[in-house]
Amino acid sequence: MKIIILKENLNNGLNIVYRVAGRNLTLPILNNILIVAEQNFLNLSSTDLELGIKYWALGKVEKEGSLTVPAKILSSFVGLLPEKKIALEVKNQTLYLDCENNQTQIKGLDAQDYPIIPKIEDENFIELNMLPFCEGLAQVVDFTAPNQVRPELSGVYLNFQKDRVQITATDSFRLAEKTLYFEKKISRECSFILPQKTARELVNIFSEKDGQLKLYLSLNQVLFECPMLETPHPQIQIISRLIEGDYPDYQSIIPKKYEVQIALPKNEFLNQIKTASIFSGKNNEVKIKVNPKKEEIEILSQNPELGENKSVLTGKISEASNKTKEIATIFNYRFLIDGLANIKSSTVLFEVNGEEGPAVLRPEGDAHYLYVVMPIKTT
Amino acid sequence: MKIIILKENLNNGLNIVYRVAGRNLTLPILNNILIVAEQNFLNLSSTDLELGIKYWALGKVEKEGSLTVPAKILSSFVGLLPEKKIALEVKNQTLYLDCENNQTQIKGLDAQDYPIIPKIEDENFIELNMLPFCEGLAQVVDFTAPNQVRPELSGVYLNFQKDRVQITATDSFRLAEKTLYFEKKISRECSFILPQKTARELVNIFSEKDGQLKLYLSLNQVLFECPMLETPHPQIQIISRLIEGDYPDYQSIIPKKYEVQIALPKNEFLNQIKTASIFSGKNNEVKIKVNPKKEEIEILSQNPELGENKSVLTGKISEASNKTKEIATIFNYRFLIDGLANIKSSTVLFEVNGEEGPAVLRPEGDAHYLYVVMPIKTT
Repeated sequence: MKIIILKENLNNGLNIVYRVAGRNLTLPILNNILIVAEQNFLNLSSTDLELGIKYWALGKVEKEGSLTVPAKILSSFVGLLPEKKIALEVKNQTLYLDCENNQTQIKGLDAQDYPIIPKIEDENFIELNMLPFCEGLAQVVDFTAPNQVRPELSGVYLNFQKDRVQITATDSFRLAEKTLYFEKKISRECSFILPQKTARELVNIFSEKDGQLKLYLSLNQVLFECPMLETPHPQIQIISRLIEGDYPDYQSIIPKKYEVQIALPKNEFLNQIKTASIFSGKNNEVKIKVNPKKEEIEILSQNPELGENKSVLTGKISEASNKTKEIATIFNYRFLIDGLANIKSSTVLFEVNGEEGPAVLRPEGDAHYLYVVMPIKTT
Repeated sequence: MKIIILKENLNNGLNIVYRVAGRNLTLPILNNILIVAEQNFLNLSSTDLELGIKYWALGKVEKEGSLTVPAKILSSFVGLLPEKKIALEVKNQTLYLDCENNQTQIKGLDAQDYPIIPKIEDENFIELNMLPFCEGLAQVVDFTAPNQVRPELSGVYLNFQKDRVQITATDSFRLAEKTLYFEKKISRECSFILPQKTARELVNIFSEKDGQLKLYLSLNQVLFECPMLETPHPQIQIISRLIEGDYPDYQSIIPKKYEVQIALPKNEFLNQIKTASIFSGKNNEVKIKVNPKKEEIEILSQNPELGENKSVLTGKISEASNKTKEIATIFNYRFLIDGLANIKSSTVLFEVNGEEGPAVLRPEGDAHYLYVVMPIKTT
């Protein structure tokens, strides 16, 4: 193998595929990146056997060939090189790099021993706008269940209907749902559960890019493909296994109406919850009293050892609210902070349903996102 | 106690005294900040028994008094309050804070139980320009010895002579010395060893400020005082114990001449050492060959498991160099990186003295800083 490539091209690719190559003690080759020179490309791949990434970097191939090299060594090394051309050559399972006044040899492992990253042969795909899709994923990805007791909750649920996709995650204490509408209807309805790690990598890799993302689906895998600028050739492919199982019928958890809805300035609300959190107890509890008559909320917390805090925030009660009585609900302050952090508008709609019913946070003027949070039971 | 104070004033003070209040399990009151309202000030203090900080914040005292309150709670809480007036009041060893729509109680401990932070009664002081003094400390403070085998090396040595102060630290593998010259001669020559923690706090607290710092010295303590803007009243006092013992006669370690001196572009040199470090072995060794005839250096590293790296950097050999032979010296790359990070000029002078003699890094055109580094012995 011999190829001449710009440092920038190689570095961009390494920064992406590097993420999946980990510290695998039982199968050390998974700590490596597979590099393949063919046609006009250097193809970089990595996999952890559940998630695989492929990247095509343009280069001038003088001799086709392949090798695997340690991901950490190669990516930290290339990152430090000057912005010049690099000559890469493989001899005796060693990668020789020559860049300006710098000569390096990195010992590799045989490309034949690297696991095969699967392909999806189906030619049908769903086309997605990269930016809103990744923003939507980012707004729910943190709320999957952490443990393996209910594996189906450990991933992000994507439900593609004709004109929209609903992106959902829940850990049964809170639930976030983002809906994205398509400009033209898609041909195929489908739904699947994406591992949280894959969703995170999609956000990390694509969230600052603009363009189209193609989604190919098979029975137990999904492939996301981003084409190279102004060509049909793929630049990045992310292929991931799916989580088996049926996602619960979460729609029944989302309250269809509310007892009281109050519109609050988001940043002040967030700040006051943080302030109250300093004095919360072991269960992170803060109490929120909504007073429809005064059109305000009171946030309270107390800790017998540290002290106590009370603050008041004025808002606007919606017309449809029950305005007769005050409602006091106890929440885990972390869940409120997490929800508010994903509300992008300056005003948040806070909806309560009694002392024990689920509350909802929504961005004002945007029906496409909601965050449901269960109160802490006081009994 | 009752006082009205601007959030900003209180917050600025807490951000400074908060740093010393730690997690002390044997003496829990040391986790608290002492607050005292007297005259026109709220005085905030903290100490870990080796280092004490006092801060005076202007406020409107309605009733004098004092209390100690948990540092972490108070400072995180005040940081979140809006930029308004805060009313502080002490009742039943509890601090009541009232700020706009926010009412809080923080439980405290009796001010009588707080350790007394010592004073220095001497009226003589040395006046220092805060900014260069802290910059100088910052350039050496990381190089004290970490362990307690030789306590005198665990601190920063300050040697005040008539027209200058030398600030020095060494861990016996490398040594950094900064010299600051005074505009007017000081009345009193003195020298002492400052604990590394105190030096770090001085850098943290004063390094972005401009102004004068007064230094008062007693037998085993030192006091740094910064006055309040346009008043003689102190704003900040830092009082620290000194490290006992005699600092070694380090001047004999600093080479008085060199075999070869080469002027190198600093950033490229730093980058190439980082590149070489990826392939260094267990002892972090990289080899530097200085070739006076070619006016260049070669940086080499190799690791039997990973691979190897070689890079070349062109420089300028000084006239006084021995130009007959190549010198190859092996260094711990971390020590070179640390030294270069404290060279502020774009060109660094690199001086070598054979395979086993100490090497020196100096900023070009600045005789006031030097960094001596010992090679790794090859035998």
